[in-house]
Amino acid sequence: MAMPFWNQKSCLDLAVESSNKEFLMEFLAQQACRNTVGDIWNGRMKDTLKENRFGYSGINKIKCFLDKMQSPKRKFAVNVISYLVFLCLFAYVLLFDLTNTVSTKEFVLVTWVLTILVEEIRQMHKIYHMPGFEKASSCVQRIRKLKNYFSEGWNWIDMFTIVMFLLGFGLRFKQSRDTFDWPRVVLAVDFVAFVFRLVHIFSVEKTLGPKLIIIQRMVKDLLYFLVIMAVFVLAYAIASHSILYPGAPVTWETARQIIRKPYFHLYGELFLDETEESTDCTNDASLWTNGTTPRCPSEAGKIVVPIMMGVYLLFSNILLLNLLIAMFSYTFTTIHEQSDKIWCFQRYFIIKDYALRPVLCPPLNVLWHIYQLYRIRQHRKLSLVTYDAFRKYHADKRSVFY
Amino acid sequence: MAMPFWNQKSCLDLAVESSNKEFLMEFLAQQACRNTVGDIWNGRMKDTLKENRFGYSGINKIKCFLDKMQSPKRKFAVNVISYLVFLCLFAYVLLFDLTNTVSTKEFVLVTWVLTILVEEIRQMHKIYHMPGFEKASSCVQRIRKLKNYFSEGWNWIDMFTIVMFLLGFGLRFKQSRDTFDWPRVVLAVDFVAFVFRLVHIFSVEKTLGPKLIIIQRMVKDLLYFLVIMAVFVLAYAIASHSILYPGAPVTWETARQIIRKPYFHLYGELFLDETEESTDCTNDASLWTNGTTPRCPSEAGKIVVPIMMGVYLLFSNILLLNLLIAMFSYTFTTIHEQSDKIWCFQRYFIIKDYALRPVLCPPLNVLWHIYQLYRIRQHRKLSLVTYDAFRKYHADKRSVFY
Amino acid sequence: MAMPFWNQKSCLDLAVESSNKEFLMEFLAQQACRNTVGDIWNGRMKDTLKENRFGYSGINKIKCFLDKMQSPKRKFAVNVISYLVFLCLFAYVLLFDLTNTVSTKEFVLVTWVLTILVEEIRQMHKIYHMPGFEKASSCVQRIRKLKNYFSEGWNWIDMFTIVMFLLGFGLRFKQSRDTFDWPRVVLAVDFVAFVFRLVHIFSVEKTLGPKLIIIQRMVKDLLYFLVIMAVFVLAYAIASHSILYPGAPVTWETARQIIRKPYFHLYGELFLDETEESTDCTNDASLWTNGTTPRCPSEAGKIVVPIMMGVYLLFSNILLLNLLIAMFSYTFTTIHEQSDKIWCFQRYFIIKDYALRPVLCPPLNVLWHIYQLYRIRQHRKLSLVTYDAFRKYHADKRSVFY
Amino acid sequence: MAMPFWNQKSCLDLAVESSNKEFLMEFLAQQACRNTVGDIWNGRMKDTLKENRFGYSGINKIKCFLDKMQSPKRKFAVNVISYLVFLCLFAYVLLFDLTNTVSTKEFVLVTWVLTILVEEIRQMHKIYHMPGFEKASSCVQRIRKLKNYFSEGWNWIDMFTIVMFLLGFGLRFKQSRDTFDWPRVVLAVDFVAFVFRLVHIFSVEKTLGPKLIIIQRMVKDLLYFLVIMAVFVLAYAIASHSILYPGAPVTWETARQIIRKPYFHLYGELFLDETEESTDCTNDASLWTNGTTPRCPSEAGKIVVPIMMGVYLLFSNILLLNLLIAMFSYTFTTIHEQSDKIWCFQRYFIIKDYALRPVLCPPLNVLWHIYQLYRIRQHRKLSLVTYDAFRKYHADKRSVFY
Repeated sequence: MAMPFWNQKSCLDLAVESSNKEFLMEFLAQQACRNTVGDIWNGRMKDTLKENRFGYSGINKIKCFLDKMQSPKRKFAVNVISYLVFLCLFAYVLLFDLTNTVSTKEFVLVTWVLTILVEEIRQMHKIYHMPGFEKASSCVQRIRKLKNYFSEGWNWIDMFTIVMFLLGFGLRFKQSRDTFDWPRVVLAVDFVAFVFRLVHIFSVEKTLGPKLIIIQRMVKDLLYFLVIMAVFVLAYAIASHSILYPGAPVTWETARQIIRKPYFHLYGELFLDETEESTDCTNDASLWTNGTTPRCPSEAGKIVVPIMMGVYLLFSNILLLNLLIAMFSYTFTTIHEQSDKIWCFQRYFIIKDYALRPVLCPPLNVLWHIYQLYRIRQHRKLSLVTYDAFRKYHADKRSVFY
Repeated sequence: MAMPFWNQKSCLDLAVESSNKEFLMEFLAQQACRNTVGDIWNGRMKDTLKENRFGYSGINKIKCFLDKMQSPKRKFAVNVISYLVFLCLFAYVLLFDLTNTVSTKEFVLVTWVLTILVEEIRQMHKIYHMPGFEKASSCVQRIRKLKNYFSEGWNWIDMFTIVMFLLGFGLRFKQSRDTFDWPRVVLAVDFVAFVFRLVHIFSVEKTLGPKLIIIQRMVKDLLYFLVIMAVFVLAYAIASHSILYPGAPVTWETARQIIRKPYFHLYGELFLDETEESTDCTNDASLWTNGTTPRCPSEAGKIVVPIMMGVYLLFSNILLLNLLIAMFSYTFTTIHEQSDKIWCFQRYFIIKDYALRPVLCPPLNVLWHIYQLYRIRQHRKLSLVTYDAFRKYHADKRSVFY
Repeated sequence: MAMPFWNQKSCLDLAVESSNKEFLMEFLAQQACRNTVGDIWNGRMKDTLKENRFGYSGINKIKCFLDKMQSPKRKFAVNVISYLVFLCLFAYVLLFDLTNTVSTKEFVLVTWVLTILVEEIRQMHKIYHMPGFEKASSCVQRIRKLKNYFSEGWNWIDMFTIVMFLLGFGLRFKQSRDTFDWPRVVLAVDFVAFVFRLVHIFSVEKTLGPKLIIIQRMVKDLLYFLVIMAVFVLAYAIASHSILYPGAPVTWETARQIIRKPYFHLYGELFLDETEESTDCTNDASLWTNGTTPRCPSEAGKIVVPIMMGVYLLFSNILLLNLLIAMFSYTFTTIHEQSDKIWCFQRYFIIKDYALRPVLCPPLNVLWHIYQLYRIRQHRKLSLVTYDAFRKYHADKRSVFY
Repeated sequence: MAMPFWNQKSCLDLAVESSNKEFLMEFLAQQACRNTVGDIWNGRMKDTLKENRFGYSGINKIKCFLDKMQSPKRKFAVNVISYLVFLCLFAYVLLFDLTNTVSTKEFVLVTWVLTILVEEIRQMHKIYHMPGFEKASSCVQRIRKLKNYFSEGWNWIDMFTIVMFLLGFGLRFKQSRDTFDWPRVVLAVDFVAFVFRLVHIFSVEKTLGPKLIIIQRMVKDLLYFLVIMAVFVLAYAIASHSILYPGAPVTWETARQIIRKPYFHLYGELFLDETEESTDCTNDASLWTNGTTPRCPSEAGKIVVPIMMGVYLLFSNILLLNLLIAMFSYTFTTIHEQSDKIWCFQRYFIIKDYALRPVLCPPLNVLWHIYQLYRIRQHRKLSLVTYDAFRKYHADKRSVFY
């Protein structure tokens, strides 16, 4: 509820602006606060208010529909559907339609990505409430806005996907005789990044949201674990390769071969036929360097490497992987309760983000921007009405309660 | 114990009719209540009462045997054995006897399934105690009964298995020149569903019952987890396939190939020979489209895909699967105690269900129904004696205690 | 300490004879009790007493050495070493020396097993303190002794191993033209049972003891789990086999093939090459029945079975196996503390068992029995001196303290 | 802070010298103590003091730089980098440069290892504060120093790596016509040991340190577990091999074959093609003894061994491995909190160790030792200034505070 003496700000606004993350997290985890955020999400309160004030005349119905579409939940749903359509189109082009000539579907994709870019630029310029912000110069304001934009990890991923896509698409026009298909690889990696953004969407869901936060924490756990793992893997990799194939040539291919077996051992692929009793192999250096037949393992390797592998497997697959499970189990138990609070915290910002978004989502948002531009031309004044839907909601409520 | 002032209902009946699930669960988990339910299950009390009242004369012995057979436990045991015989027959027919001509064994199976159907229809019509139910019209009563019947998940499975079986059997008579063996596939899937019903049987067992409830909860956990998993799998699947086999044809076969490898990677099958050094492959499109020789992976794929796979395996097999273990471990610990209560709750309804069943189980239940029909013809009045064995039990007891 | 008024029994004896298992377990887990049992185990107290009373004259040294050998720990160590030698000899014979003619090593083995049998017979006849036992008739006493002997699980295994061995050895003399090598199989299975007895030895060790008790409990957990697992495996096994290879012949070989793949799927062996793209297979029934070439999967199977397998793997390898881990984790945490108590309880009986054993272990125990027989002949009176080393220990102590 | 009445020792020194490990661990885990140790580690306090006393004149800058380099953190960082360079060089030589002639790179390696040896010798002679130590004779002092040196496990590994390296390098000069490449194997194993020392480095890191301590504990758990595992593996290994390949020759090759399959079964490698339907095998003893074609499994083995394997896999892969996960999970939860304390304890000694090290790390430490030798020659008096950097730190502090 907006409070007259506190510059018309609600308790929620004050809590958010307090910039005390600990307190805010506790505050947002309160049931009352959850309900309020949930109501904003569903746009429920607004609807009730509307219905009280207006009868259902013809014009009001359209207005009512547009208002309904402005609830964060609806905007979110439309966004998700539009994004899924985009991903399907991208996947289709990537799999079936990336031939030598650039097709129409690809141009559709590029335009779509550009509209996503427009949306990202809008996010960069969105109003940013910070004490003393309004008094700063335009340039300082712009830098602060950018700083704020890049302070969130997801925005980095957003920018990365867009830049990668444009890079991949640009490479398509560079005629090369190279057998290595660069644009395809760049676009495929970019596709993974685009799909990865879907995970952000799950954050709003009640059950998946906290789980994603747990996954984030576990990735950190995993990274530390990987450092220990890497020491084991590398030690075994270099030792076993040096015994099996003495005097290897100094190439990238050798580096790949060194790391390949010990790494895949982790997943239960033991390559026993390659180390133990390979019959279709050669000791002739000229043959195995050009890759026609694999190189024969040395006699010493046939005896020593299986023993080393046995010890390595015991440490990597039994000790370390099971330690990881124990670690995860412990982390899960300790942060499970906390994850719910963090989720409430993140959800508030996602909902606020969607409340402030334009009604039209990425592929059509350009139309909205053109309309805004047209309005500015008309009134020579930047209208900020649609921007502060979140504030407006409080305003509406106030007009009734006070 | 039946209480005279409460319409001759026992505490148990009142608790069940209170329709407060929380309270009922607590009530049924009480040791006293457990014992009572356990006694009904074994039909023990009734026996003692019988022995007290009657001497062991010739006629009484037969009556006594029939009474014993009416204890839920005996009915249950006979049901289980009959069902196991049915499953064995089904398995035998499916494996060895599903030739072009329809055999006698199949007709036996169909009759059996029809008797199961009769039993299900009986369950649909069973008396259903609900406040204000008796006053409703016949049609409303029928709808309510159906609603009640389908409110339990197991009944859905029951109906599904019967319909599938009849469908599969029906397809056997449709002469087709199709190489795809539809009736066999339908019956095989149906067999799985029939076996799955066995799990319902374990619910009564003291150790397995709570475990099955935990599994039910974990399946829910797993479903949410699979959503996250699917995002990872699909992203990698599409990206890796587009790099390995650029410009694939738009067929179902391609869809299968896209999902196949990343999915089986989860179980430790890495297909390294297919991506890395396949020698017996072709780049000729006419050859790999008709499936004689597999298609060669692209040069870029041979280099990039193993790296992508390495990262994918780290996320899917190490991060996500171990996260699942942690999740399961947490869920198990938290709901283990609760599962016991839920089991008591479910067990009560299963026992009640068996207490109200006819003495003869599915393949012979038709005889019982014919007998009932004959009795109705005789007396022109629906006798409900055998139906309320559960009530009768209280009645018997009352006659002694009061 | 022995108490004069309680029939010269120690607190320990009274606690054991109280036959209240709960109380005894608590009693034996006390630190004081642990120390006493530990002292008996090491034979430490006795030594100190000995040293106080006798100087180290020549004759006493030998007596001292024999006394030292009578401490349960020493007897146990000698037993273990002798048993390990026996196992090595058995393994050697099994692997290298089980030719058509019966070798000398085998006869050594048979004699050894017979001495083990003698030891088991002694254990059957060992004095058994039970209220009112002494007054019973000889026949009743014998039956009670046997009952007591077979009340412990390990004795069943002991008898099983001996009977199996003699059976296996007996089969060696039966000339048969059978290609199936029965005596070898029986002896190999027997060897596993003999090695399994080693686990009993670990029970005494401080860290391994409680772990073995936990394993025993987990085996119970696992058995219930296997029932659920078996339902899943069988359902999938029969359904998939009926689709892949319709109209299989009714043989044991078919039964093996049905269960083989789904079972090994649990361990990550997917047999994808057999179901999907097998080229060296035949549809000619005469060829695949005699086992020269494998049978081709049906067309329907190639499409449906991989999908069924995907679902099966999800349930078996991801849901059920991870559920098992969660179950084990829970069981481990709950019974870990308790396991220590149970271990103390079991350890007491093992130590008591060893305290009452003859000084010479199995292969040489015959000598001791012959010596006893000789003594009985001489004195016409069964000397029970060595039998109650446990009691004697208290006696020695008492003679000093009182 | 140094206390005048306690022989100028700080609280920390007193606590360390109290030789009460329990107390010391508690003491070092205090936040105040952590901060102090952290400050010594960063060399922070000393810097502030320096800056207060001296202006930044030319000479002081150099002195300041050298002082900065003397902070344990800097010494540690330089040590780590130098060690990583050494490992890279070693890996390079091992993989690519270990030809018949000894290369220059190898001689560089040997010199480097010798400087590491010099460092280890210095550590052996480092001043060792123990009550009554100063009064002992020179020889006793030396023995005590060695005892102290070898009391830490890492020093054993250090000596092992150096000795192994020199042995491996020595073997290079022994001309042999042996096909087995001994020097390479010795150096490869040594490389693993050298990399393993890297783990010691992670001990200082805040997140990895406690995890490494947990791993140490779990290795102990694992060892006990392996004993139980070994019994299962050996029993199955001997039984299955004796059935599959009766009358094997008594060679090391047979020993390898016996253990190979059951061991790799643990990691999901089932070798089903070898036991079940091997076509390219021989029953001719002369052929399989020289290893050209594998031996055919016996008829009995083809039937019995898959069944035995099924049971073995159930016990080893499902029961025991999941038990291990449960064990690890329990151990992790119980010792997680404690591990932090132990880490503080270990960290203190590592930091003290680095505080007392010479400024120059292994490859260049010889220069420092030569300089020290030169100074001793000049002054005929062993200067211990740089040795007690740890004490000096307190001295500096005292000069300000008192």
